Amino acid sequence: MQNIRTVTQNFDFHTHQFLNHISLDCVVFGFHDNQLKVLLIRMKYTKEWALPGGFVKEDESLEVAANRVLKDRTGLDNIFLKQFKVFSEPQRSDRNPAVKDLIDSGSNPDHEWFNQRFISIGFYALVDFSKAEPTPDFFSDLCAWKTLDEINTLILDHSQILNKALETLRLQLNYQPLGYNLLADKFTMPELQKLYETILGKELDRRNFQRKMLSYGILNKLQERKTGGAHKAPYLYEFNLENYQKALQNGLFGGW
Amino acid sequence: MQNIRTVTQNFDFHTHQFLNHISLDCVVFGFHDNQLKVLLIRMKYTKEWALPGGFVKEDESLEVAANRVLKDRTGLDNIFLKQFKVFSEPQRSDRNPAVKDLIDSGSNPDHEWFNQRFISIGFYALVDFSKAEPTPDFFSDLCAWKTLDEINTLILDHSQILNKALETLRLQLNYQPLGYNLLADKFTMPELQKLYETILGKELDRRNFQRKMLSYGILNKLQERKTGGAHKAPYLYEFNLENYQKALQNGLFGGW
Repeated sequence: MQNIRTVTQNFDFHTHQFLNHISLDCVVFGFHDNQLKVLLIRMKYTKEWALPGGFVKEDESLEVAANRVLKDRTGLDNIFLKQFKVFSEPQRSDRNPAVKDLIDSGSNPDHEWFNQRFISIGFYALVDFSKAEPTPDFFSDLCAWKTLDEINTLILDHSQILNKALETLRLQLNYQPLGYNLLADKFTMPELQKLYETILGKELDRRNFQRKMLSYGILNKLQERKTGGAHKAPYLYEFNLENYQKALQNGLFGGW
Repeated sequence: MQNIRTVTQNFDFHTHQFLNHISLDCVVFGFHDNQLKVLLIRMKYTKEWALPGGFVKEDESLEVAANRVLKDRTGLDNIFLKQFKVFSEPQRSDRNPAVKDLIDSGSNPDHEWFNQRFISIGFYALVDFSKAEPTPDFFSDLCAWKTLDEINTLILDHSQILNKALETLRLQLNYQPLGYNLLADKFTMPELQKLYETILGKELDRRNFQRKMLSYGILNKLQERKTGGAHKAPYLYEFNLENYQKALQNGLFGGW
């Protein structure tokens, strides 16, 4: 942890263009190998894991800032991105004492900047795992996908932010469609079910799932099957994008 | 508008306890005389209308700050309150030129504070109209309920904030129950329908509304009718709070 002072010093000249007190944290979800994954960064000196995030420039809206951060971390543009909650407990930015001591002992007055109170706007993002290229930021030496099982402690209140993002997704599964930004263009019913199961954290009955899902009218069943040969290979589906968008707008059960 | 300088000067000594760049705006809904109403304040010197709002003290979370603001404006505690979006366009705090000139010409350096860029966290609140006591704040001479029809222009981007709150409510009507904090303990089906209609901004078919609403299982039909005498007086209902809470959690159509 020796060099954290140097790091923050190198970063100093950037800080003046950011708004005080405001940060953003992104919970980036991807789906791969039938598993829900979250993009994390590992801090250079403490080796702690964190959500990717950033600050807001003087001429940026939050949305522009979040897109910039996600472009930097994944190489992707036009990510499906949503504000879900602002985290503002006064103590939330308190760092662990070792890190705080190091920052405090720095001679550079701009270290103050890192020690101020931040309220953080939580965004969640749904990205195409296969297209993202995880890239660390200035403070991290690693950027990587982790399954929920692999995630232990995160810095600050980032575990709470991650859990709230998951909770938001879970709730939305009850009335909004999900999957378009996470699955391949063509997918099987078991793949879609697995996505729901990893978000919900529980197993679902295969037949009920299929019946319910088909009743929403957001899927097109294709003539193709997953693999050419096998007799029992599952059918492929794609989203009916017009109905999918409508259901995103009005909910899966229609409007009044 | 002569005296705005004095007003902001008087306010100065307060400002030091607030976080820079962060404000909150509250869209407070009440229901009265079969109409949806919104609580507004009228600025002392410009006579412009605005949403009630405020700033965040150094030791407050956003939720604590919003509750404080709403307590000050309505006298009510424990208001049903929800963050719904952060408004962060860089130009959103630009004031109309007349007001800006007045503030700029002030000799007090703390006027800077009012001219900084604010991102504003939007909360909506559902309150019992009959119990609220509208009270102006330091910058306003009037605090009053307005029907949607009565609202013309609001300061800054407050119209946009109001519209987004309405849009949020409208969407939620498709999958969440609503009414507990807005209606009296006992209400008629036409009253509940009227509440939905004013939020949706359109008329609904009486029989479809009743059928759909009863199917959710969130209402208890009482033996009483609205008025003792009349033969055709409508039955009274109350919310089944256990089911209502469950539907708030999981959506009106249940979970997976």
